[in-house]
Amino acid sequence: MSRINAHYLDLPGSYLFAEIARRVQEHGARDPQKRVIRLGIGDVTAPLPPSVISALHQAVDEQARQEGFRGYGPEQGYAFLREAIVRDAYQGLGIDPDDVFIGDGAKEDLGNFQEIFDQGCLVAITDPVYPVYADSNVMAGRAGPADSLGRFQGLIYLPCTADNNFRPDLPRRRPDLIYLCYPNNPTGAVLSRDDLARWVGYAREQDCVIFYDAAYEAYITEPGIPRSIYEIPGAREVAVEFRSYSKTAGFTGLRCGFAVVPSSVRGRGPGNALVPLRDLWLRRQTTKYNGCPYIIQRAAEATHTPQGKKETRAIIAGYQENARRIREGFQTLGLTVSGGVNAPYVWVRLPTGLDSWGFFDALLNRLGIAGTPGVGFGPSGEGHFRLTGFGTSADTQEAMERLKGFNI
Amino acid sequence: MSRINAHYLDLPGSYLFAEIARRVQEHGARDPQKRVIRLGIGDVTAPLPPSVISALHQAVDEQARQEGFRGYGPEQGYAFLREAIVRDAYQGLGIDPDDVFIGDGAKEDLGNFQEIFDQGCLVAITDPVYPVYADSNVMAGRAGPADSLGRFQGLIYLPCTADNNFRPDLPRRRPDLIYLCYPNNPTGAVLSRDDLARWVGYAREQDCVIFYDAAYEAYITEPGIPRSIYEIPGAREVAVEFRSYSKTAGFTGLRCGFAVVPSSVRGRGPGNALVPLRDLWLRRQTTKYNGCPYIIQRAAEATHTPQGKKETRAIIAGYQENARRIREGFQTLGLTVSGGVNAPYVWVRLPTGLDSWGFFDALLNRLGIAGTPGVGFGPSGEGHFRLTGFGTSADTQEAMERLKGFNI
Repeated sequence: MSRINAHYLDLPGSYLFAEIARRVQEHGARDPQKRVIRLGIGDVTAPLPPSVISALHQAVDEQARQEGFRGYGPEQGYAFLREAIVRDAYQGLGIDPDDVFIGDGAKEDLGNFQEIFDQGCLVAITDPVYPVYADSNVMAGRAGPADSLGRFQGLIYLPCTADNNFRPDLPRRRPDLIYLCYPNNPTGAVLSRDDLARWVGYAREQDCVIFYDAAYEAYITEPGIPRSIYEIPGAREVAVEFRSYSKTAGFTGLRCGFAVVPSSVRGRGPGNALVPLRDLWLRRQTTKYNGCPYIIQRAAEATHTPQGKKETRAIIAGYQENARRIREGFQTLGLTVSGGVNAPYVWVRLPTGLDSWGFFDALLNRLGIAGTPGVGFGPSGEGHFRLTGFGTSADTQEAMERLKGFNI
Repeated sequence: MSRINAHYLDLPGSYLFAEIARRVQEHGARDPQKRVIRLGIGDVTAPLPPSVISALHQAVDEQARQEGFRGYGPEQGYAFLREAIVRDAYQGLGIDPDDVFIGDGAKEDLGNFQEIFDQGCLVAITDPVYPVYADSNVMAGRAGPADSLGRFQGLIYLPCTADNNFRPDLPRRRPDLIYLCYPNNPTGAVLSRDDLARWVGYAREQDCVIFYDAAYEAYITEPGIPRSIYEIPGAREVAVEFRSYSKTAGFTGLRCGFAVVPSSVRGRGPGNALVPLRDLWLRRQTTKYNGCPYIIQRAAEATHTPQGKKETRAIIAGYQENARRIREGFQTLGLTVSGGVNAPYVWVRLPTGLDSWGFFDALLNRLGIAGTPGVGFGPSGEGHFRLTGFGTSADTQEAMERLKGFNI
């Protein structure tokens, strides 16, 4: 008898976005005339910018010639990209290219990073939250079974609601690992420098490790909001940061991201010995990963050039304009809306009594608009709905036209 | 105190090929004049074939246009590639495109697949063996500490030596999971249909799951040797198969492979309920993976066209010719050599008393040839040395020139 990992059976039946895709497909089969506008899954729609396309073509041509061909690359990623990242995003923050690990995207890195910790570690996540943080810890046996609300009994939940302005309070019970994502998916909230400093101080005092998901950093528009957790003094000893090219440069289909793991962040081994997480993550990646494709690392490098930055900023500005329209559209219906200013996500509060899957079905079936039900992100997401600015401008405008006068 | 996964501390200090790279680099610093010929790590050297290059350019151009742009793909891989694989490699073997999962390579899939099993599963590996099988299970806590020979006390080792013609005997104690790799890395041995049928029969009788690594299938030259484990009746209930485009089509730097997980292969859940592994692997992949890049899946598809197959076959023939030269070169020194006929690897038996790291250093420092010490693949690899046919033809010929008259 080959026993399976029974923790998998504690998971909800399907991954949130797979369930959404299923319902959208079913709707399409029932009503093939009405084109569904997808503002649900956070997938980008703008084609890759010219700098990226040109870097890809050039790298492909290198792979066609004996003298330019590259086989296995360094598992940690090529130095040219790790150096470009530090130059462009971590200047003056004490981060070294050796701390940077190139990967296939933030989903992969965030899903796998928990592996280097003990199974007994206590994990804190915000609620609502990106499902990967919870699900990967459920699989690892850190969460136990879920209650009737879908809340895993072994996790610490940090509610983020209108009551606390979507900024979580410090936990009452000490966790080992804390997942924070700012700008936030799904609420679109951000943390001020003081907010984030409180978390760094707490982690230092309580000997916790923060997994800081900064995948939406490029959407920050207001001044004074930290773009990296390493802007906070002392974070280099307690925080690992994850970033992605997906939403920054349209890489959802190309797959590239990175983790920053300063060698000063350490966990406890047997006898309480301090062990640098960087060494463990390097061992994990060299053993189970063979590096992000060379041609894609060259594409990522292109986004750090002045021209590449100009092009990606223009695309992001378009998505931000979409988010603004969505905010206004739902506000016009009299609903309370947050996010969409420093984040591509708009978080809509539904009228009391409306559940979020019900609203999902209504919006899909009556208007042909696919969003994401808030409860898919956790129990505190119930009564909310997420929309993204990642559609095309034309689709977003049409969706807001369809929304006009919608009788909820 | 955030406790780390202490099982990592049971691992050898560094991944085998990272250690080899370190010694080669050190040698280069000491003796910059002598160019090192690398016949150690199994990395290909021929540039990507024209069909693959052309598919890449075309897919990149699609990504540049609004109407052709593709963001997130299906986590399991695009249907066009899964269908091409079944048509090309599994015709008549009862494999459905739904059973195929596209991934970033066999290393990743083989490293991650054990996650869906219970931590208590007993694992059998051949010895010598590709290090990822052992190391990923060490990390998962299935192996315990190693003895003085580097043998993990919790694993079942199946010695493959000249005494059994490099074909492992059935285990004396029943394992839950069995890793088999044929054509074999590192010994270059193959299993006949009868040999493989014996393993499938054992797994069926004992309720085991076989992880069948067929990454080198394209190197089989002799008739009658099974290319897929599914050629054996009954394998569809007990075996998962892993393949890669790395050695078949030069994708070591592009990263693409696939796992075949028929829904009829099942493990045991609570109460001995049978659970299809396919469901668990789908959940794993949808949660922690976002799919292989679209452009790379198009490149992989190109290798299944008649022209793509013609091109890749020519490249493989070149590597096979290299392997033949290496065999002859070492045989001329009076050494016993196996492999290199149905596999790109040549396995050299060292004269009694010579240890494999010592031979590695001698070959590197005296001739400037980097191979792989047999002991790096496990205790039974001691006294052996692996060389690969993946160098360029010119390099391989020069290496064999340097080898002439080598005084071991």
